[in-house]
Amino acid sequence: MDKIIHGLKKFQEEVYPIHKDRFEALADMQDPDVLFITCSDSRIDPNLITQSNPGELFICRNAGNIVPPHSHETGGMTASIEYAVSVLKVRHIIICGHSSCGAMKAAMAPDSVESLPHVKVWIDHCRAAKEAVEHRHEHLNDEHLDEVTKQNIVLQMNHLKTHPSVFSRLSTKEVQVHGWMYDIKTGNVEIYDEDKGEFVDA
Amino acid sequence: MDKIIHGLKKFQEEVYPIHKDRFEALADMQDPDVLFITCSDSRIDPNLITQSNPGELFICRNAGNIVPPHSHETGGMTASIEYAVSVLKVRHIIICGHSSCGAMKAAMAPDSVESLPHVKVWIDHCRAAKEAVEHRHEHLNDEHLDEVTKQNIVLQMNHLKTHPSVFSRLSTKEVQVHGWMYDIKTGNVEIYDEDKGEFVDA
Amino acid sequence: MDKIIHGLKKFQEEVYPIHKDRFEALADMQDPDVLFITCSDSRIDPNLITQSNPGELFICRNAGNIVPPHSHETGGMTASIEYAVSVLKVRHIIICGHSSCGAMKAAMAPDSVESLPHVKVWIDHCRAAKEAVEHRHEHLNDEHLDEVTKQNIVLQMNHLKTHPSVFSRLSTKEVQVHGWMYDIKTGNVEIYDEDKGEFVDA
Amino acid sequence: MDKIIHGLKKFQEEVYPIHKDRFEALADMQDPDVLFITCSDSRIDPNLITQSNPGELFICRNAGNIVPPHSHETGGMTASIEYAVSVLKVRHIIICGHSSCGAMKAAMAPDSVESLPHVKVWIDHCRAAKEAVEHRHEHLNDEHLDEVTKQNIVLQMNHLKTHPSVFSRLSTKEVQVHGWMYDIKTGNVEIYDEDKGEFVDA
Amino acid sequence: MDKIIHGLKKFQEEVYPIHKDRFEALADMQDPDVLFITCSDSRIDPNLITQSNPGELFICRNAGNIVPPHSHETGGMTASIEYAVSVLKVRHIIICGHSSCGAMKAAMAPDSVESLPHVKVWIDHCRAAKEAVEHRHEHLNDEHLDEVTKQNIVLQMNHLKTHPSVFSRLSTKEVQVHGWMYDIKTGNVEIYDEDKGEFVDA
Amino acid sequence: MDKIIHGLKKFQEEVYPIHKDRFEALADMQDPDVLFITCSDSRIDPNLITQSNPGELFICRNAGNIVPPHSHETGGMTASIEYAVSVLKVRHIIICGHSSCGAMKAAMAPDSVESLPHVKVWIDHCRAAKEAVEHRHEHLNDEHLDEVTKQNIVLQMNHLKTHPSVFSRLSTKEVQVHGWMYDIKTGNVEIYDEDKGEFVDA
Ligand SMILES: [Zn+2]
Ligand SMILES: [Zn+2]
Ligand SMILES: [Zn+2]
Ligand SMILES: [Zn+2]
Ligand SMILES: [Zn+2]
Ligand SMILES: [Zn+2]
Repeated sequence: MDKIIHGLKKFQEEVYPIHKDRFEALADMQDPDVLFITCSDSRIDPNLITQSNPGELFICRNAGNIVPPHSHETGGMTASIEYAVSVLKVRHIIICGHSSCGAMKAAMAPDSVESLPHVKVWIDHCRAAKEAVEHRHEHLNDEHLDEVTKQNIVLQMNHLKTHPSVFSRLSTKEVQVHGWMYDIKTGNVEIYDEDKGEFVDA
Repeated sequence: MDKIIHGLKKFQEEVYPIHKDRFEALADMQDPDVLFITCSDSRIDPNLITQSNPGELFICRNAGNIVPPHSHETGGMTASIEYAVSVLKVRHIIICGHSSCGAMKAAMAPDSVESLPHVKVWIDHCRAAKEAVEHRHEHLNDEHLDEVTKQNIVLQMNHLKTHPSVFSRLSTKEVQVHGWMYDIKTGNVEIYDEDKGEFVDA
Repeated sequence: MDKIIHGLKKFQEEVYPIHKDRFEALADMQDPDVLFITCSDSRIDPNLITQSNPGELFICRNAGNIVPPHSHETGGMTASIEYAVSVLKVRHIIICGHSSCGAMKAAMAPDSVESLPHVKVWIDHCRAAKEAVEHRHEHLNDEHLDEVTKQNIVLQMNHLKTHPSVFSRLSTKEVQVHGWMYDIKTGNVEIYDEDKGEFVDA
Repeated sequence: MDKIIHGLKKFQEEVYPIHKDRFEALADMQDPDVLFITCSDSRIDPNLITQSNPGELFICRNAGNIVPPHSHETGGMTASIEYAVSVLKVRHIIICGHSSCGAMKAAMAPDSVESLPHVKVWIDHCRAAKEAVEHRHEHLNDEHLDEVTKQNIVLQMNHLKTHPSVFSRLSTKEVQVHGWMYDIKTGNVEIYDEDKGEFVDA
Repeated sequence: MDKIIHGLKKFQEEVYPIHKDRFEALADMQDPDVLFITCSDSRIDPNLITQSNPGELFICRNAGNIVPPHSHETGGMTASIEYAVSVLKVRHIIICGHSSCGAMKAAMAPDSVESLPHVKVWIDHCRAAKEAVEHRHEHLNDEHLDEVTKQNIVLQMNHLKTHPSVFSRLSTKEVQVHGWMYDIKTGNVEIYDEDKGEFVDA
Repeated sequence: MDKIIHGLKKFQEEVYPIHKDRFEALADMQDPDVLFITCSDSRIDPNLITQSNPGELFICRNAGNIVPPHSHETGGMTASIEYAVSVLKVRHIIICGHSSCGAMKAAMAPDSVESLPHVKVWIDHCRAAKEAVEHRHEHLNDEHLDEVTKQNIVLQMNHLKTHPSVFSRLSTKEVQVHGWMYDIKTGNVEIYDEDKGEFVDA
């Protein structure tokens, strides 16, 4: 924690002064163009990998970059998506999965999280992705991690399209949905091509 | 979107090479010490304000930096907290609210989000904070925004303490909970002092 | 009720004997090829309009031919779909909406069902369809009923694709999803063409 | 699917013309007298076994002809019942179970559907029926299928009576609830006699 | 609070010694014969009005003596009923409503509790009782309070019969369900006679 | 049941006449100062152990004296607390746990209630208490029952503080929350001292 407090002071003394004008301009409002949904994983820094500035990305993060399908029940993702699309009127939504994701590993082996009741239920939102990959191969093993992760990105894009604010703006192209697969080791990003039904280099 | 793609390429060509060693070392695992819970607001960059590196902060973000109280129902926050505390064994949890928060404004005037059904239900998790401030003053107005935001941070800390993984590690001090109030305009952070029952400068 | 009881006796005395062999063959098992999802509306008879026999269509019916998106919560549709796809291994799923649908009228004017709390919540599953049409026109009126009904069919097809059993069999084409718009007055059926993104004559 | 499309065309060319007047008269409204709740099973055709015409039966179908007890939560059955009773003002509700029902077999052996999470939860609405039969015999076996199915019909009638629209019209006899047990093999129907507490021939 | 603490000391010094043997005998187990469900109202003392001793009544109390219908969702009533019937094997269940009940007044005028969101939802479990009385009279007024309260007792008895542990033991008469209407002012109790369908003096 | 009916008559003939004035004074309203939350256990009589009279304690009872954390979902506890605090304006809330509690035994050994699905889910609200004690010792055994019971009282106090009506009145001290541990065998009560973080004699 000392390191964090130390970093905070360094930010205030050395970094904030450089960006002072920007922060003051942003003091009363935000107007981001992009809703960026990614995993809570500590190795991902959305502003770093997109080289974007404060004010540009409205960011939602949870374990597994999951978007529950729309339902009567409200959760943080459902509410935050509604806010981003209907109030902030973002024009792009990026769902960004990543290599070596702990949530995807759990989704592939639900029994391994038997003692984590909420993780177990949460990753059930990825079950269709896991079952789709499982359906193609005889058994799942570690080599299928990337395939499951990519299927999960596609699945969460499907889920996103059940949310009223998104569904109603898709046909008019006021909003576009993008799927990204980020490789932590190489910094590479593959983007989902809906026409081809596969991921291609950015 | 062009700007984002352009930033991504810049990251890959100019920034990644500098951090190559770090990213390669992180390729297969993460070991963060801190769970950082903050608002989705585009003006907040947790890694920037704490000057921390990839791998150091496990980050959860939603509109209003809300932590629903523990219940049988699973949501993204509940699952991600369970994962961070029980699997990653983070030792600190920071709940970071901020000035000029749209979710707090909505919480102060729920009627203003009548057409946003999920935002309306989600900010009901902040109702106790709003009612506590309202209880002290005759009417709520714009000047009470910071007070509501701070009460909300305290409330979400209370909520956090109802989660089994947190409750069981609090008495043994394996985990500590911190409340931060970040001022976008000035870069200042106030931290909640539980003994005094008030926020003090970091 | 007398009419119903009278009809039942007529079935037993006059109709059953004709189909006796078929019913005896079906006594212990079913093996339908199609899951047919349609509205509870009394004017629709799935077996009549497809001229199919007992044993051929597994039929789910509710007000509005709604398929809630997949979630942790179980309802009749979610369970029946799982049963039809995973146990009976149906190869086709038809979602059949229809002209003059009371549920669609309610979805277009939710205030009209203020005194029907459950109808009001149920048709919220059609809200995205209503908002999509509303988004294109300035105001909704009676002339948009067919357009909303068709958008609802597309929306429920989207919902269907979030169910794990369906999602995992779609890519391998073990299962196909079809959208039908049935006109009660003329007996005509239009079928959704996903490539064109519009309904075409059967 | 070809067979279905072929049947549809046959309906339009050969059957619709015969009923043209009826369908045109029904084009803008329905006024059914009966809400018919039955299983999705492909072997049941409500219009066939009651020899009724389009416009006479408002039909709800799900696996197991289950009526969840009334609760704050809305599902397809709850909403459709509310619509049928409060809007269409049906005067009779028939819950029709049947022989050889897959849902009842699952209810008798919940472990057999361990891999079907939603079927498993859905048939929990039949648990009281299964436990009632189990309570009378030492063990359940295949011979108890009809007894469980009948108890389930009685149970779902109980559930139905917890729905406000039904409960409030029962004492004034504006609505009556009927329990039917349909035998696929013989075409026979037994009807529940509430005074006797047993099923008797129709 | 001083009065309570004072009463507690008086109990320990003056009352406990008299019952010492009984309490010591009960130290390790309970074996009650009756599950007594009543309102939280401060004017009701179940042990006083039945002149029963510690160990005889397993008591559940909430505002309105409500028993939610059985569902997949667990609440305090559902769990406590399951415990009382399946573990303690009580043989009688008494649902005891009462005159001048605040919850029934709220149920008759839901708008009066608009600012109490949970009370409003909770008393929706009494809506069928309110609607049944409303259905018989043109308008509801204060004079219908007792009639609504009695209908609510009957409704909660219906709800009780949807719980598996109760449903399965009713036909074998291992458990019996009783409805009581207690008049605070006179101490009188009327008991529901299911055959007559009305309340009669105890 | 005869004993209960007999007791009821004894109350009406011998006890009510003594308290006639009090009951008549209470006929139309209640004004309790205390919300008393305790277990349904038959061995506990709140009015007896506090030597209080009808009209003094608003009493909520369920298996395990559990207060679910506040959420969007309404249950009996949530609604009754809202009613007691916001309408009756009680000034004290006592959560009273007790020795030899069946719910606590179940919470310590959830596998023992595998066949009681709702008890199992309900006591999950005590899981944090069980895990906190488990975290300090290597294994849980019977000797830890009192420690778990006390931790559960503290946990439920935490839960109580997430309810808006309570949270908003705590800082102004309009409401105070108390934790009691009642020993059935000895009649002794220990009270939780928040400053010390431990239970002390009353
Ligand atoms: Zn991840
Ligand atoms: Zn914010
Ligand atoms: Zn319809
Ligand atoms: Zn069936
Ligand atoms: Zn009451
Ligand atoms: Zn207890």
